[in-house]
Amino acid sequence: MGQEIERKFLVTGDGWREGAEGTLYRQGYLAKDKERTVRVRVAGAKAYLTIKGRTSGTSRAEYEYEIPLKDAEELLNLCEGPLVEKTRHKIPYAGHTWEVDVFHGDNEGLIMAEVELQSEDAHVEMPDWAGKEVSGDVRYYNSSLSKKPYKMWTDT
Amino acid sequence: MGQEIERKFLVTGDGWREGAEGTLYRQGYLAKDKERTVRVRVAGAKAYLTIKGRTSGTSRAEYEYEIPLKDAEELLNLCEGPLVEKTRHKIPYAGHTWEVDVFHGDNEGLIMAEVELQSEDAHVEMPDWAGKEVSGDVRYYNSSLSKKPYKMWTDT
Repeated sequence: MGQEIERKFLVTGDGWREGAEGTLYRQGYLAKDKERTVRVRVAGAKAYLTIKGRTSGTSRAEYEYEIPLKDAEELLNLCEGPLVEKTRHKIPYAGHTWEVDVFHGDNEGLIMAEVELQSEDAHVEMPDWAGKEVSGDVRYYNSSLSKKPYKMWTDT
Repeated sequence: MGQEIERKFLVTGDGWREGAEGTLYRQGYLAKDKERTVRVRVAGAKAYLTIKGRTSGTSRAEYEYEIPLKDAEELLNLCEGPLVEKTRHKIPYAGHTWEVDVFHGDNEGLIMAEVELQSEDAHVEMPDWAGKEVSGDVRYYNSSLSKKPYKMWTDT
């Protein structure tokens, strides 16, 4: 079991880039409705199967299992719709590890930062490259970005 | 990776019961469309997450991972629609292991036997309690039985 509590922000500027190393993530969804998502993720040389429940505020039940890379490559072909590709950078800042995702392909242009918290009301010190918060905005869910990629948005 | 090749039959009579020990299975689906199913199964004290692709003849891609029982109990609550409950009996017969499933709840009355094969054209010796073959009939998929249980069928 797990409980995922995270906040998400758009990224402004390049202040986070110095010394940041990235890992290519490729992921797809075997299920992506409001009640549950089942994600297949290849992260560098590792691979995971992740199930998440409905989001409530900034929290969500989460179950993650490492699976063989070879299985994951095959499972990506079973996924519905286009894959989401991004390069993830892990950036320590003021006691938290921020994850900055630079999206590729049909989501090119989108850069998003996530920070995982121990509790919903945990204090987070904001780096100056963290812009508008988009935690509750479903359009920014990776499962949504697979259905309606960033390049198709007309109102931003 | 895996490839599941199996044939399914309705069961006639009680000839299979002698000495057969059963294990209670409870399972639900996180995804159940034609292209892919994601199943959560609690089988006695063990639990599994199983992904299957589209069925082609009697074959189907299958990926199975053992997961903690506690996770599975929680994941069953995330599943769509009612769970499928059955008691599975493993019965050796003429070099194959047959699985006889006695369904419960809304599928009470249905007893089905499955046999897993090494190849699509493998010879199988039929026990006399194996009745009509239902391998290709989607109504008998466990994922279908979760959507439309046996008790709701009107044409049998």
